[in-house]
Amino acid sequence: MGHVVATYLVHEQKADLHKKAESIALGLTVGSWTNLPTIEQAQLERHKGEVVEVALLPTDGEGTKGLIRIKYPAANFSLDLPAILTTVFGKLSLDSEIKLVDLTFSPEVASAFPGPRYGIDGIRETLGVTGRPLVMSIFKAMLGRDLSYFQQQLREQVLGGIDLVKDDEILFDNPLTPFKERIRAAKEVLGATEAETGHKTLYAVNLTGRTSELKEKAKRAVAWGADALLFNVFAYGLDVLTELAEDEEITVPIMAHPAVSGAFTASSRYGIDRALLLGKLLRMAGADLVLFPSPYGSVAIPQQDALAIKEHLLAESDIHRRAFPVPSAGIHPGLVPALVRDFGIDCVINAGGGVHGHPDGAVGGGRAFQQAIEVVLAGGELSDVDDARPELAKALTLWGGAGRS
Amino acid sequence: MGHVVATYLVHEQKADLHKKAESIALGLTVGSWTNLPTIEQAQLERHKGEVVEVALLPTDGEGTKGLIRIKYPAANFSLDLPAILTTVFGKLSLDSEIKLVDLTFSPEVASAFPGPRYGIDGIRETLGVTGRPLVMSIFKAMLGRDLSYFQQQLREQVLGGIDLVKDDEILFDNPLTPFKERIRAAKEVLGATEAETGHKTLYAVNLTGRTSELKEKAKRAVAWGADALLFNVFAYGLDVLTELAEDEEITVPIMAHPAVSGAFTASSRYGIDRALLLGKLLRMAGADLVLFPSPYGSVAIPQQDALAIKEHLLAESDIHRRAFPVPSAGIHPGLVPALVRDFGIDCVINAGGGVHGHPDGAVGGGRAFQQAIEVVLAGGELSDVDDARPELAKALTLWGGAGRS
Repeated sequence: MGHVVATYLVHEQKADLHKKAESIALGLTVGSWTNLPTIEQAQLERHKGEVVEVALLPTDGEGTKGLIRIKYPAANFSLDLPAILTTVFGKLSLDSEIKLVDLTFSPEVASAFPGPRYGIDGIRETLGVTGRPLVMSIFKAMLGRDLSYFQQQLREQVLGGIDLVKDDEILFDNPLTPFKERIRAAKEVLGATEAETGHKTLYAVNLTGRTSELKEKAKRAVAWGADALLFNVFAYGLDVLTELAEDEEITVPIMAHPAVSGAFTASSRYGIDRALLLGKLLRMAGADLVLFPSPYGSVAIPQQDALAIKEHLLAESDIHRRAFPVPSAGIHPGLVPALVRDFGIDCVINAGGGVHGHPDGAVGGGRAFQQAIEVVLAGGELSDVDDARPELAKALTLWGGAGRS
Repeated sequence: MGHVVATYLVHEQKADLHKKAESIALGLTVGSWTNLPTIEQAQLERHKGEVVEVALLPTDGEGTKGLIRIKYPAANFSLDLPAILTTVFGKLSLDSEIKLVDLTFSPEVASAFPGPRYGIDGIRETLGVTGRPLVMSIFKAMLGRDLSYFQQQLREQVLGGIDLVKDDEILFDNPLTPFKERIRAAKEVLGATEAETGHKTLYAVNLTGRTSELKEKAKRAVAWGADALLFNVFAYGLDVLTELAEDEEITVPIMAHPAVSGAFTASSRYGIDRALLLGKLLRMAGADLVLFPSPYGSVAIPQQDALAIKEHLLAESDIHRRAFPVPSAGIHPGLVPALVRDFGIDCVINAGGGVHGHPDGAVGGGRAFQQAIEVVLAGGELSDVDDARPELAKALTLWGGAGRS
């Protein structure tokens, strides 16, 4: 039947963590144990939670801090994330200072989840790009703008050599740029630019609306020619992503946006660990690309968290394809050496202001990123940038970064 | 078109909150403003976010603490909670120390949401009970147990005079007590006990499984005779609840469970305010009953938070019906005076151990609660309890509470 092992970080003022662990293991499974008749114990054995480990950690002050690891038999839940989350962190999320820091799934459980339909290899194949990070840019300030503005912005981004362009996550279905029309308008632009330059670009349209309509809407998007779907998974629910990824007719990659996830992950004492939520669970649920705040920018997360997300998305697995890490927010060409150092070539370099804010506009911004990648992958230093790469030079002057590597 | 005003609690080490507020108001709407040509300003005016208030609060230490209130035009989002949450706390949830502490909705926006289909009045009408709090109990330790055990436990709870019995939230669809069979088995017991005693009891079955199947499953549950649905809304998503509540064919009350919500609400500096999430948003989304930790028990929340949840659920409104507050966890008969004092008669007194752990079993537990309510509503003190109420006397001896009022 398999199992899930949950690891909790616990802060307690005056508790015996072993006793607490026992009370979790029983309270969230069979309720009680030692006082049960032997015949009932035999009947309930396969449902009983088990304390795997209790590890005390050094505290910074008063109280007790520790890790508690509990094994929950899969016999206790249906194989979906709502059931698993309710089991391991339902009532418990309300109980004192406790954070869910990891979940490990036995292969029987993990195999029940789709993982990415395309993943890194599938997206690279579609784009025909290997051996370098992809570059993505974001539509900016589309609220109140019409389709011709949309097309113009898209064209500028694409002509700089961008691989993927995504909607802003706050662009919903609206009269000026409706979902269907955005897909068609993007297709028109991308067809034209590919014919002109030979460079293929994918457009990720924001899949929004009511939960029960998303699957059909996604299928229609595919039929209309959508290349990829952006999805605010944490505004909906992990199972909604899972069901989109499972659907055989939704034949485009899904890009998970971290919107709202900070409400779960930001506290060090409560909620759910960033790498677990954005890395392990999103990959399992079927995200092909996962956006998260980079460690460098304006909205930043700690370096070790960003790297841990990446590790979960890239870890070798016989069960799920690898998903693209997309470190985001405050990214400019001067950060390419750090991005490649930290995330390798299997990542998507994602920029908004770092593309649109270039002195030569979005075309220049896209070029500057591509030039930075060329230099870094050739083993060079951005400080060596010469006249052959004027857009990169301008970007470094504006945003800095020539000194980094 | 209407609007939503979001209030944020912000902690900053070295920031000008006015500047931060402006950057939120623009960054989450039109992107920029002062540098836009007048003609574009005219075009974007109706999409522009607006700083309504910036209020500095006293800090306990270093840094700045304050409230920021931003008005977001409804023109910017579709009228669903995923779009609203992504707008007001999507990217922003990832940004520094910020907590979403309130949302106010203009009537145009609030009216787009169903609110409770039955609410307090509808549930009282179904039960034929007015003028007193309802009493609910919870199935205990059903994992690994079969339908005959289920029926026996239900019968015992009901014979004590319980008004509602709910599944444990960690009971999912399973071979021993499948969803359909639980409904049928409960119907059988409840039909028999009502015939015997004249007392009507509702059973809330846990609606679980895959997101896309929930609506149909709920309709089948109604057809099979389900009285109410328990729903782990935070393991799914607020919009899933909204869609269940909107469905004309789901003609039973929905009871929202707070499982997993602690991951959002527990931190004082991050996440989403308890009363906003469990009170205002759950009522708007359509919960008829809302469970939350009481301020008294083992898993407790601060008194002011519990009362604020209650206020949101009970506030007079022309738009949405009132929902039942269900303060839960660690409730025993000795707490009835405090419950009535704090929550009034329009609440559901919900107990697990406080019913099952009674010296006379669940029957005694149910009776003890009913007796405590009689005494309190008659203006008496639990300390006056006499031989006419032996179950209450035993409960007070076991759990205490005779001194409270």
